[in-house]
Order: sequence, then structure tokens, then C-alpha cells
Amino acid sequence: MEINDEVAIRRQLVKAVRMLERIGILDMNGHFSFRLPKQDRFLINARAASRASLTVEDIVSCDLDGRVDEGMQEPPSEVHIHAAIYQRRPDVSAVIHSHPHWQTVLGIAGHPLRPVFSIGAFTTDFPVFEKSSLVNTRELAVELAETLGTSPVVQIRHHGNVVVGSGIEEVFAASVYLEENAKKQFYAASINADFHVLEGENLERTRESNWAPSIIRKAWRYQEEKARLAGSFQGIDSVGKGEA
Amino acid sequence: MEINDEVAIRRQLVKAVRMLERIGILDMNGHFSFRLPKQDRFLINARAASRASLTVEDIVSCDLDGRVDEGMQEPPSEVHIHAAIYQRRPDVSAVIHSHPHWQTVLGIAGHPLRPVFSIGAFTTDFPVFEKSSLVNTRELAVELAETLGTSPVVQIRHHGNVVVGSGIEEVFAASVYLEENAKKQFYAASINADFHVLEGENLERTRESNWAPSIIRKAWRYQEEKARLAGSFQGIDSVGKGEA
Amino acid sequence: MEINDEVAIRRQLVKAVRMLERIGILDMNGHFSFRLPKQDRFLINARAASRASLTVEDIVSCDLDGRVDEGMQEPPSEVHIHAAIYQRRPDVSAVIHSHPHWQTVLGIAGHPLRPVFSIGAFTTDFPVFEKSSLVNTRELAVELAETLGTSPVVQIRHHGNVVVGSGIEEVFAASVYLEENAKKQFYAASINADFHVLEGENLERTRESNWAPSIIRKAWRYQEEKARLAGSFQGIDSVGKGEA
Amino acid sequence: MEINDEVAIRRQLVKAVRMLERIGILDMNGHFSFRLPKQDRFLINARAASRASLTVEDIVSCDLDGRVDEGMQEPPSEVHIHAAIYQRRPDVSAVIHSHPHWQTVLGIAGHPLRPVFSIGAFTTDFPVFEKSSLVNTRELAVELAETLGTSPVVQIRHHGNVVVGSGIEEVFAASVYLEENAKKQFYAASINADFHVLEGENLERTRESNWAPSIIRKAWRYQEEKARLAGSFQGIDSVGKGEA
Repeated sequence: MEINDEVAIRRQLVKAVRMLERIGILDMNGHFSFRLPKQDRFLINARAASRASLTVEDIVSCDLDGRVDEGMQEPPSEVHIHAAIYQRRPDVSAVIHSHPHWQTVLGIAGHPLRPVFSIGAFTTDFPVFEKSSLVNTRELAVELAETLGTSPVVQIRHHGNVVVGSGIEEVFAASVYLEENAKKQFYAASINADFHVLEGENLERTRESNWAPSIIRKAWRYQEEKARLAGSFQGIDSVGKGEA
Repeated sequence: MEINDEVAIRRQLVKAVRMLERIGILDMNGHFSFRLPKQDRFLINARAASRASLTVEDIVSCDLDGRVDEGMQEPPSEVHIHAAIYQRRPDVSAVIHSHPHWQTVLGIAGHPLRPVFSIGAFTTDFPVFEKSSLVNTRELAVELAETLGTSPVVQIRHHGNVVVGSGIEEVFAASVYLEENAKKQFYAASINADFHVLEGENLERTRESNWAPSIIRKAWRYQEEKARLAGSFQGIDSVGKGEA
Repeated sequence: MEINDEVAIRRQLVKAVRMLERIGILDMNGHFSFRLPKQDRFLINARAASRASLTVEDIVSCDLDGRVDEGMQEPPSEVHIHAAIYQRRPDVSAVIHSHPHWQTVLGIAGHPLRPVFSIGAFTTDFPVFEKSSLVNTRELAVELAETLGTSPVVQIRHHGNVVVGSGIEEVFAASVYLEENAKKQFYAASINADFHVLEGENLERTRESNWAPSIIRKAWRYQEEKARLAGSFQGIDSVGKGEA
Repeated sequence: MEINDEVAIRRQLVKAVRMLERIGILDMNGHFSFRLPKQDRFLINARAASRASLTVEDIVSCDLDGRVDEGMQEPPSEVHIHAAIYQRRPDVSAVIHSHPHWQTVLGIAGHPLRPVFSIGAFTTDFPVFEKSSLVNTRELAVELAETLGTSPVVQIRHHGNVVVGSGIEEVFAASVYLEENAKKQFYAASINADFHVLEGENLERTRESNWAPSIIRKAWRYQEEKARLAGSFQGIDSVGKGEA
């Protein structure tokens, strides 16, 4: 891997974090990591840096035990989530942990997630981790990774979720449409406990046509454009702001 | 038809798309088309171009089989919706396909649309298409057009809707107030399953007084003004941005 | 009355309309009128002028039969509401007609308004007019005014409401807190049909302490400040924009 | 205490008020006070000054009977809330009174607050004061302070709440996450009356890991950053604006 590639990845992570913060999937908390190709290291946003004004200097690198490389800012206290998943899941290169509103509400209400909206048709009854505290020890994180198993998503009751996948754009888009699907499920459930769920051949065709690389690309580019128009990318390359 | 008219139509389509995107009826998806007078061709926004920064160069023309004219950007994969409807409905000159939140929620909940709000009193129990995938083949689109029949609206379960009419401003205003009516229906239903529905003479008088050309004009001009004040029209005539 | 006073009133009406539009109580529709002291005439915003960019030139004057003074823009088609109320209610000098979301929803759901929030404790089970069409004839307006009777508010089922009072600031603040009270009532009702209603001595003390001239003044000034900070007052004195 | 410290506290109070106003916890009403170290005096925002454009000159000082120091702007009519609590609770140095939407809704619905969200796990069934009027006399305030007892929060039915603590950042963060917890409780309750409540060991670990000084600091800094980016701090040091 060239040094230039790592720079590009840092920049893409910064944009992803600011884009998710703009639409409320990240707030003061949450983190987005990416495993460097052919290395036992991953990049992640630093603990203290505001998600709304993150810069490339606020991306730190860690090993698969969650130890940050020397001289860097402190990683999130929940960095163990990322480390444990990268250790257990060689197929995974990107991880988001966040506190999305509607999924958290459905979890509090005890409603399992169901596919109800075309672009969120990849949603299914994902595993739920029942320990709601910060996942700030290696032990808790290993337990969470076991609950995740081979799933792309694990919900954390009263707390949030973790979404994993093979690329930054893929987990970004999955996060956005998982939450949109959850929002629509919530509202439908509030007027009809026996709402329509996508199923059978209709579910298969809908998932297949809607969850394609071209849609993921489009979701990323649309949110990128919205963030750009809203001024959300100002200063992403700033130097000397890391300690602010 | 003069070339200048087509330029004006392109511009109006671009404004309509940006206006609908601003208020959340369009997002990364959705398309708005217009049949060129006395031609078997229609204009539509290109597949890849962001609805938030669409320009006149992102409007492409297609024939009634959904084939884009040479040298133009790719049309939406669901262009067939528009082609099939224009073939079947000579009375129709404008078509919007979008994923409006409240109508989609009511569809998931299995609640048929009802007229409950004065300006949305044209709402009725529109036909529902039960295939929720992308309508990205001619066969699916023909089936959808058959379900639409002579109605101004067809709902697509778990997915969105299609609104048709004779002019850009008309389908624009219908889209806006159909969704406003659906939103009010949703909220009323959430506190009283047996909510009041407009009916009889009251329904007729309300629909007639509220769904008039002057109201359609006013709805367009109001949203145009709001979009202008929000800066949503910046760069609509931009040249050389099409490949971005 | 001095000519300067009328200029000041026009300016205050323009600000009030833009302030209500900013917070969604007015949109493309709705009107705000004020009866000129010791005259059988009232000022009102013109029919076609956008509520988001209204100027002092868009305020027209009418007599108590709803006829606009010569050379002026057309008044709203529902100008009769204002005329009929001023004729019947000598105590009234200011009238707002709008389509507030939560009150309309409660009306569709058949829930009478109840006082539930401190600043909205003046709310009571106001009369409801059951004809939902535009109130665009003198006959309908007289009937509406009769339904209003001596109340400060009349609800129009499926449509909106009319709020009346002695001054611009008073009906402005009443409109804002009536809707806030309705919003809180809606949400409380959605999780407990038997929610707490303010009553007895607690209601009296709450209404008395919260619905005072100093609170009305404060509500006006707060919204004025918010509108100013949001840039909502740009061009309110513009000349030569009336025909736009 | 140095004079410079008091200047810094004034500035922090102004920022806190504008930050809470930006996110809707304060609006035209509400106040934030801080007891000066080793003095029987506290600082509080003035009655008439807009919370959206408060400046350091709009912070006034009062004694523990709620009397404002000479030559200063008028304090809020509910200043007695702060005075009575500082008299009764030597452990308290910061007090917020506001009208947060979701807590008020839960109060109207008669739902006691429950811990349901990780960062709001400090929430419990706080005492409720049943007199809903303005707390604008010393007698009412003393009664409210008695209802508060040793709790960090007292709810006021149909009206709002009071949050107390040892520092500005602490009560700020508590206000924000108390309301976020209430919002999630509301939505969960609306689809399942028997929703999951944090309890037992899971509650303890969640509260302990999430309600730490580092989280409080982070909540403050995040909102500070958001307010700064939104331009909400413009003119906080303005001189000569107090009478506006």
C-alpha cells in the first residue's frame, strides 16, 4: 500500500464521519474505522475530536489489540469494538459504531427489526447485545463480536449498533438505510401492530435490485453533495487543529 | 415547438426537482419527466446527477420505449415507468416517481389513503402496486401502468408512488399536498383509528374550492420562492458540470 | 390616526406574517389583518404575495364588506372571514386565519382542545366550524363568525383555525402557544388517552400568571429576534416588488 | 475569587444559554444560574434579554433572597426558584429551569421518567411538583425546593423542570441527556407500553460508564462546537446592547 492511499483513506473517513454527523447518525459519540489493506492495523477517529469538525489529523491508527500508534491522539474508549471485530472477521474492513435514534427506540420497545422499505430491504432480525454500558474493555468487545457472529449488524440494547462491511461507502450506506428502514418500521408499527413486512419473492427481488454497488455509490455521492452544499467539509485538511 | 420552449421546460424541470429535493419528497432517488408537446419523446433527469445540484445539462430526452437520445447521460433505471405511462395515457404529460415518507408509512401499515385535509381533498383510495422492487424493466413498468389505470396516482407498497398529470406545476403541487394529507392522516390515525374523513357535500365543496389552477400556481410559486431564498437554485444553468 | 401610524401597522403586519411563516403557522396560505382605529377599514396581506417575502406594499386595505380599496392588489379569496368578524365583533381589532398542523390533526381525530401546557393554559374547547372548504363567500364567512360567537378562537375541521383579539402581538402570541399546546396535547394523547388536563385552581393560577401582557410582549420580541437572526426580514420595505 | 473568574463565568453562562436555546431546551423562557464561589450571590440571565442573543451584559447578580444587585436589569420573575434552591442546597452551584418538550409531554401523560438510554441512564423517577403556574413568589419557590429535596431534578407538571448540580457543564449535559432519554422513552412507549427499562447490574454499569466527567466535558465541547459552527455565539461580548 502506498502512503498516498492511506492519505486518501484518512480523508474519506473524515468525510464519512462529518456526513454521518450532519444527518444525526453520529453526534458527540460514535466512530468509524477502516482496516488498512494487508496490515494488522486500522484507522479510526480520535476520542476527543468533534465529529462535526474532524480533520485528517484526527484520524489515528491502532493495532488489532486496540493500542494506538505512538505519538497519536487517544482513540475512543470503545476502540476495542473495532479491534475485536477485525480479529474475528477477516472479511470485514470497515466498522461503524453509532447511536441511531430509531433503532435504539425499537430496541427499547423490544421490536425486532424487519425489512419494510425498499432500499432498507437488507434489514433482518439482527442479533442484539444485551449489555448496554460503554463497550470499553477488551472482554466486553470480544463478547459483542461473538454476538455479532457472521452478521453485518449487531444492535446494542438501550445504546446503539455496530455495522460492518468490506468498504467505507458500503457501511456508510448501510447505516443510513438501516436507520431509514427502522424509522419507517417505527411509524408503521405505531398505527398498526400487524404492519406489512417485505417477504418471499417480493423481498428477494426488492433487496437484490436495491442493494447494489451502484446504489451504494449513489447514496455516498448524494450525501457527499449535501454535506458539501451545507458547508460541512470546511477545514477537513486543516493542519495544527488537532489539540483544539 | 420552438427550441426555446424546450430550454424553458428543461429549466422548469430542474427547478421542480430541486424544489422537491429541498422539502424531502425527492432525495438521492426519484425522477420527474415531461412529455414534449406533439412528440413521442419526454425529458427526464439523468440517473447519476444529484437531485440537489441538478442542472439543465442533466436533463436527458428519451423515446416512448425509454431509450435515451444519443450522446446523452444515462436515464434512471426506472425510466420505463415514464415510458409505459406515456404510451398508455395520452392525457398525461408529466410524471413524478418518488419515495414520500408518510405515504410509504401508510402503505406499510396497510392504511388506504383518505381525504382529511382541505388542500389534499383530491386524495382518494388510489390503486396500490404490490411489487416493491425497482421498476427497472419494461415488463414491470407496463404492469405498474396497468395498475395505475386512469388514476392520477399509484402507490407502490414498501417503495413510494407515481403521480401523473397534464403539467409540471400540477403534478408538483399534487405531490406536495398528497404527502401533506398523508402526514395529517397518519397523525390523526395514531390517536384515533376512527378519525374524521372528508365526505359527501363537504368533501365535494372542499375539493372544488381547494384544487383549482390558482392554488396549483400558488403552491408552485411559494415553493419556488422558498427554494430561491434558501439558495437551492444556485448553478441551475451551469455548463460543463454534467460529468461531476 | 396619523398616516405614520398606518405605515407602522403595515410594517408590523409584514413582520408578523413573515414570523409566522418562518415557524410554519403560515405557509403559502393564511392571512393576518388589523382593523384601523376608528375606521371601518382593515389592513390585510394580499392574496398572491408570498408570505415568506411579503413587503409593506403587499398590505392592502378593505372595507367591512371585504372590498379592497381602489388600485390595490387583490385580497385573499377568504377576506370575507375578516370582514364578517369585524362587523360582528367590535371588540376585535386583529384576526389571523391559518392552517396550523397540530390543531388540524386534533380536529381530524375528533379530539377537542384541552389546556395542558402552562403558556397555552388559555386553551379551551373552542367552537368548531364543520364546513371545510375555502371560506370564500360572504355567506360562509357570516356563518363562521356566528360559530365563533364571543370566543377568541374557532377551529375549522379539516382546514385550520381563526384567532381573534385586540392587537397584533396578542393574536400572534395566542396563535403560537395555542399550537404549542395542541402539539403537546397530541403527543400526550398518543401514549395516554386519559392524559392530565389543567383544571380547577391550578388551571386558573397557571393561566393568570402565564397569559399576561408581559408574556405576549416577550413572545413577540423573541420571535422577532429569531426571525431577524435568520434573515427573515430582508427587504420588508422593498419598493417596486409588488408585482413579482 | 478574582474579578477575572467572574467574567469567565458570565461568559460561560451566556454560551450555555445560547447553546440550550439553539437545541430547543430554552426558548423565550428559561434561565440558567451559577452560585459565585464563597459568596451568597448568584449570576443569572436577565428577564427580558433574548436567550438567542444574550450577551455578558445580560447576566445579573442576585442575593439568596432573589434580590438583584443595584443598577442591573430585572431578573426573571421566577428568580425565586434559584434563590430557594441555593438556600436549601449548599451542595448546589448551578441551576437550570426550562420547559423541555418531551419531559413536559411525559408529565402530561402521567408517565414517570425511566432510564432507557445509555447516556441518560442517570434518569430516575424524579419528584414532580404539581403547581403548574409561574413559580414567581418566594413561597412557591420554597415549596418547589422542598419537593426537589436532595434530588438533582424536579419535574413541574404541565410546565417544565429544574435541574441542579455542582457545575455549569454538569447541569448543561444533564439537561441535554435527560431530554434525550425522555424522547426515547416517549417513542418506545408509543409502540409498547411495556418497553424495556434499564435495570439491575446493567443499569449500574451503564450509568457508571456513561455519566463520567469526561462525558460531561465532551457533551459541552460538542454543543459548543455545533453552536460555534452555526454562528450562535456572534456578539456574546457585545457592549451597549443591554437595553435593546
